[in-house]
Amino acid sequence: MRAAIIAVGSEMLGISKVDTNSLEVTRHLEQWGVGLVRKSVIGDHAADLAHELRSAFDGCDVVVVMGGLGPTEDDVTKEVVSGTLGIRLREEPEVLARMLSLFEKRGYTMPETNRKQALVFEGHGYLPNPRGTAPGFHLEFDWSGRRRHLWIFPGVPNELHGMLEADFGPWLQTLGLSRRFWRTLRIVGMPESLADEKLKAFYEKYRETPVTILASRGELSLHFYSTGPEDAAWARLLAMEGAVREALGDRVYGTGDDTLELVVGRMLVARGESVATAESCTGGLLAGRITDVAGSSQWFLGGVVAYSGDVKTSMVGVDPAHIQQHGEVSEEVARDLATGARRRFGASWGIGVTGIAGPDGGSEAKPVGTVHVAVASRDHVEHRKLYFAGGRENVRRFATNAALDLLRRGLGVVVGL
Amino acid sequence: MRAAIIAVGSEMLGISKVDTNSLEVTRHLEQWGVGLVRKSVIGDHAADLAHELRSAFDGCDVVVVMGGLGPTEDDVTKEVVSGTLGIRLREEPEVLARMLSLFEKRGYTMPETNRKQALVFEGHGYLPNPRGTAPGFHLEFDWSGRRRHLWIFPGVPNELHGMLEADFGPWLQTLGLSRRFWRTLRIVGMPESLADEKLKAFYEKYRETPVTILASRGELSLHFYSTGPEDAAWARLLAMEGAVREALGDRVYGTGDDTLELVVGRMLVARGESVATAESCTGGLLAGRITDVAGSSQWFLGGVVAYSGDVKTSMVGVDPAHIQQHGEVSEEVARDLATGARRRFGASWGIGVTGIAGPDGGSEAKPVGTVHVAVASRDHVEHRKLYFAGGRENVRRFATNAALDLLRRGLGVVVGL
Repeated sequence: MRAAIIAVGSEMLGISKVDTNSLEVTRHLEQWGVGLVRKSVIGDHAADLAHELRSAFDGCDVVVVMGGLGPTEDDVTKEVVSGTLGIRLREEPEVLARMLSLFEKRGYTMPETNRKQALVFEGHGYLPNPRGTAPGFHLEFDWSGRRRHLWIFPGVPNELHGMLEADFGPWLQTLGLSRRFWRTLRIVGMPESLADEKLKAFYEKYRETPVTILASRGELSLHFYSTGPEDAAWARLLAMEGAVREALGDRVYGTGDDTLELVVGRMLVARGESVATAESCTGGLLAGRITDVAGSSQWFLGGVVAYSGDVKTSMVGVDPAHIQQHGEVSEEVARDLATGARRRFGASWGIGVTGIAGPDGGSEAKPVGTVHVAVASRDHVEHRKLYFAGGRENVRRFATNAALDLLRRGLGVVVGL
Repeated sequence: MRAAIIAVGSEMLGISKVDTNSLEVTRHLEQWGVGLVRKSVIGDHAADLAHELRSAFDGCDVVVVMGGLGPTEDDVTKEVVSGTLGIRLREEPEVLARMLSLFEKRGYTMPETNRKQALVFEGHGYLPNPRGTAPGFHLEFDWSGRRRHLWIFPGVPNELHGMLEADFGPWLQTLGLSRRFWRTLRIVGMPESLADEKLKAFYEKYRETPVTILASRGELSLHFYSTGPEDAAWARLLAMEGAVREALGDRVYGTGDDTLELVVGRMLVARGESVATAESCTGGLLAGRITDVAGSSQWFLGGVVAYSGDVKTSMVGVDPAHIQQHGEVSEEVARDLATGARRRFGASWGIGVTGIAGPDGGSEAKPVGTVHVAVASRDHVEHRKLYFAGGRENVRRFATNAALDLLRRGLGVVVGL
């Protein structure tokens, strides 16, 4: 079963609004095993919507249209469907009566234009809309010799949600397709292409299973799903997870909605330990990510944003000789920042970050994107030199990933956990 | 001229991610008078993408495809375009050489799979991608006897943005269509409903002009546009701007892409002054926003993230008696944080923030969402007590808005500027 979603409304073709209704429809489709093949947004124009409908019917068994059921001239969905499928519209007295009484209750006379909301498809039922005036529809018909299902819902989110729960979900369930179960693995410290290379055997082994790898903000996430009876589906997902972990080792840092800061926080809490930060190029973003975690005050003591050399020395205790000899962006200064953060805040662990985020400040020896991170514990300082491309925002974000990951490794990642 | 946008990537057909890249493309289209007719999202499947491309070419002069240019097997955009248009692909040595050197710089060997990113269309040029590895494309061809333009960009947002600016915008300009001129005003410190109320007369006066007000992350932006000859269009926009500023006063803090941190930075640079921060509940986000601004080292000296009471005292010099008498979330502690930040870093200005971001830690007297911000100059400390709803993330973000806005007011806002 292949599905398409069409959102109708010119306002979603502007510069500020995107369609989000489709996520709710997708949730229903996925849960009951129907694959979403495409989704689209079309303005309030009859010819464009007609073209879009035909294109969707050509390739999809289930087509969901949202919006364009209002009372204004812009609302053309029913007329277009009527024309495309050759099904006439008629006024439904029950719908009209309910609308009239709704208006009366609110103390208005119903404008004549609203009558069009009472039009329904001849020879087909309609779906009541207890939260609004526009009914929805489920039309079943043949298209080029194949059975098609067209669902039409209002675009008003809470009306849509109600009808998805009441009508669409139960119908999907009756299709008796196999349910879908998801697993997500979170990966840090390797580019997408390297992960792909290491996962070749995995892809080969599970070639029939759709696996998506997604790069976002310097991290990767790997999504895969399984269908069938719940027990067997989960057994398969866990076997797949095992194969990924075998290939990628401790680059896999979490599952589901895990973030690096959450994972590091959990490890610190488990050990009864704490961390403090001293940041230069990341300028507070590292502390900001850590304190995004609710309850982080339990394990995060504080941080210093040390942009200038003077501040690095006065506030964190960086050795001025290190700055003079090696520069502010150097292994030595990163180590001093980590050690200094740990000592000044009295934390179990200290993180130091220094680098050149750009766009200016780079040199041949230290180009923009050069970053040093260090993590200090009582008796050891671990350091990494990194180089990130992609502009100031990326360099800063990726540097916080590297710093959190280095701490995670210091805390003792258990491979395969 | 009719345009379509196609975003390629199965991850945007799931239950959590929507395409937002298209908004940036739309901004360019609108600016140069090209109408967006439809946009769609297609999974990483060759047959579906081919169907979608043909459907778009049938009805649109300009088709923009984003995504599917990565190195993995899932990335099929170029192969599908090649098949659909009958244009062969060839390996471009220049692109390959640049990729090899990028990998070398990062200390990796380029995986063999990445080679496919060096494929370009025979007989057509390519668009360099200075922020990434995948080049973009602009193909011009005839489709059913009509001229078509296909633009292909990577789906990585900052790579896309760079190429839209460098290549797509300038090309749209050459079309010579009737331009659309936009004006955006940025507003802080008032809810949308209040702004709407104050703008009633403005809406009335300009009822034929589409005005959009958009609330995002505790700020408002007001967008309006005008068409026609450039001079007349701008005169109209400036008259509208004047009317908005008259209604909202110094709540309007900027125009276009201004951010509070940019505006504050400009004012500090103009005065040859500097600022330092001491944050509790915002945990580094304030410093993080400030250091997002390239060149902020010129006016930002540094900051302390002081989560615990001990750290507030030891690192920033907050009076322990104030903490004991009034609690860590209090006017007195906010003032001490501002004064301490200023003094410890030797800055012209100091900002202090303390509050309860939640979800826990609230009480009847100080509920979750209570925030105190203070701004200290040499001889004065200004303070505001605020209350924000909407959960931890909102409280933290809104608190940074309030802190930056208080500094902006301290620096002397010129109303109507």
